[in-house]
Amino acid sequence: MLGLYYDGGLELRRDLPVPEPGPGEALIKVMAAGICNTDKEIARGYMDFKGIPGHEFVGVVTAADDPDLVGKRVVGEINCPCGICYLCLGGKENHCRERNTLGISGRDGAFAEYMTLPVSNLHVVPDTMPLYSAVFVEPLAACFRITEQVHISPSHRVAVLGAGKLGLMAAQVIRLNGCAVLAVGRHAHKLKILDRLGIKTVMEKDLDIRERFDVVIESSGSPDGFNLARSLVEPGGTIVQKSTFVEPLSVDISSLVVDEIRVVGSRCGPFEPAIRALMRGLVHVQELIDRRFPLEMGMQAFEYAMRDEALKVILEMKTYPAEGLRQPGELAEDSII
Amino acid sequence: MLGLYYDGGLELRRDLPVPEPGPGEALIKVMAAGICNTDKEIARGYMDFKGIPGHEFVGVVTAADDPDLVGKRVVGEINCPCGICYLCLGGKENHCRERNTLGISGRDGAFAEYMTLPVSNLHVVPDTMPLYSAVFVEPLAACFRITEQVHISPSHRVAVLGAGKLGLMAAQVIRLNGCAVLAVGRHAHKLKILDRLGIKTVMEKDLDIRERFDVVIESSGSPDGFNLARSLVEPGGTIVQKSTFVEPLSVDISSLVVDEIRVVGSRCGPFEPAIRALMRGLVHVQELIDRRFPLEMGMQAFEYAMRDEALKVILEMKTYPAEGLRQPGELAEDSII
Repeated sequence: MLGLYYDGGLELRRDLPVPEPGPGEALIKVMAAGICNTDKEIARGYMDFKGIPGHEFVGVVTAADDPDLVGKRVVGEINCPCGICYLCLGGKENHCRERNTLGISGRDGAFAEYMTLPVSNLHVVPDTMPLYSAVFVEPLAACFRITEQVHISPSHRVAVLGAGKLGLMAAQVIRLNGCAVLAVGRHAHKLKILDRLGIKTVMEKDLDIRERFDVVIESSGSPDGFNLARSLVEPGGTIVQKSTFVEPLSVDISSLVVDEIRVVGSRCGPFEPAIRALMRGLVHVQELIDRRFPLEMGMQAFEYAMRDEALKVILEMKTYPAEGLRQPGELAEDSII
Repeated sequence: MLGLYYDGGLELRRDLPVPEPGPGEALIKVMAAGICNTDKEIARGYMDFKGIPGHEFVGVVTAADDPDLVGKRVVGEINCPCGICYLCLGGKENHCRERNTLGISGRDGAFAEYMTLPVSNLHVVPDTMPLYSAVFVEPLAACFRITEQVHISPSHRVAVLGAGKLGLMAAQVIRLNGCAVLAVGRHAHKLKILDRLGIKTVMEKDLDIRERFDVVIESSGSPDGFNLARSLVEPGGTIVQKSTFVEPLSVDISSLVVDEIRVVGSRCGPFEPAIRALMRGLVHVQELIDRRFPLEMGMQAFEYAMRDEALKVILEMKTYPAEGLRQPGELAEDSII
């Protein structure tokens, strides 16, 4: 099959074997997949990954033990835990030490025609959800992880650092709590998306450095973001750290103690709230789509996505067969987008 | 009056003026004061402090607007906030930007015969509390700050790093919650204090590096402590950072994100729970007293306290007058200690 493959360098390959689903796994025909910042980091060597990257996807189940699942359009959680260790049994499956992670660690991902994933990871997407909204379920779930971990009160002042894909969604999710949100970015055309939604924005260079926030969401994707977050957070406040990067960071720990700052690392989140929010139109995601590329142009898609100005780049698997499967995604694509 | 004075170097001075209490302040005759790690840092230049250090004290009020307070034995909260800014009005007085802090920043402290403090900072010590227990109210309150900030469940496994004064008290406070506590230290004679109280201890060099904890209290006082805490904390767990030090630290922020670690800076705490715990005998503090020095030997006391092996060093102000004041501390000192 066709797919992108990383092994020290990224390449488009036509000779990849269609994966065999293991016990409890489904075979999924990928319809569309989003390129995430983590994918870009992987293409730079993050996680020492080898294989097919990609973890934001929507696809159709083509084989599974449960016949009812076949033909269904699904999205999927990316962590595949062992299910039997004390972390799994204690409800921390996403932190299982034996886990592999779709397209990130130990498991081939979604930038190919077919992929596999345990059935227990799958969430059926409502038929009326547009194909290109479904691609955002995974990163949107990561935004709902913030409010799962940290109580954001309607009286809080919250700053969201970074107007990339994650920041643009996080600002919308945080706003649902009724609090005052300020989104801080470096690209006017990205902030404009939030302006149109009525969310207050400011260019980082124009930020009033005397302003302080109860909660700062660090989703800038840049190591500088942490220290900016530190300078913006109120004493007793919280920094939610979303960005990952390879370099270690020099941190003034004493200042965290004196000001009693709380730093909360935040990763993957719950899918169902993300699906509900999309279905109810509470979060706008299609505005974040910058450009769609067919899988055949995967290399160009990555090159395009690497630009600082880029927003969400989506790979489309146009070759999916019509072997009698219902393909609501196609319908959605034609009729709704 | 006699006192220790820091101005780029610490010295004993006999020419210090007795302080004048300002509006709403009490004049306090210091009876005893503890040397804390922060004092040792101040003597090394931390906070650029200039003046009389010392913030762990017990003393007798010799002048105050409220005549009922005169003659009372008191301990005192160390942060003196402005009372009118939005942080003060929002219940974050300890983080007031206009605050001064007893013996740490902008206000002379307790290593002298007399000191002043706002009456609103004072807590009257029950007559039956021994003098040398009362000296521990302030640092013990800082331990109760931990459970004020972080919910420690009886099912949690908690590690306390550092068997200095703070760690030895923190381990006892944390244990009150019913959880499993392991205290990690570098000095066998300090850990022995907890052994005798039935708290599990281990020398850092003998630590099983495969063990993981839901909560790690970092009270080692050393920059190494943070990375040890990081390696010991369970995914999804919490590091409570108590230690302050001058140097910035190199931190792997991505690992905090991937493992969703929560880092909570923790400083000063509530006095009343500390007083209650001491009165009920729930926390043992007198075992932590290493040596008492008269104020005249303040320089030798600091030199002694600077040693890694030292535990709590107390300065005694033996010269307090007997001008008709009731002095329950003296009674306690003679009869109970």
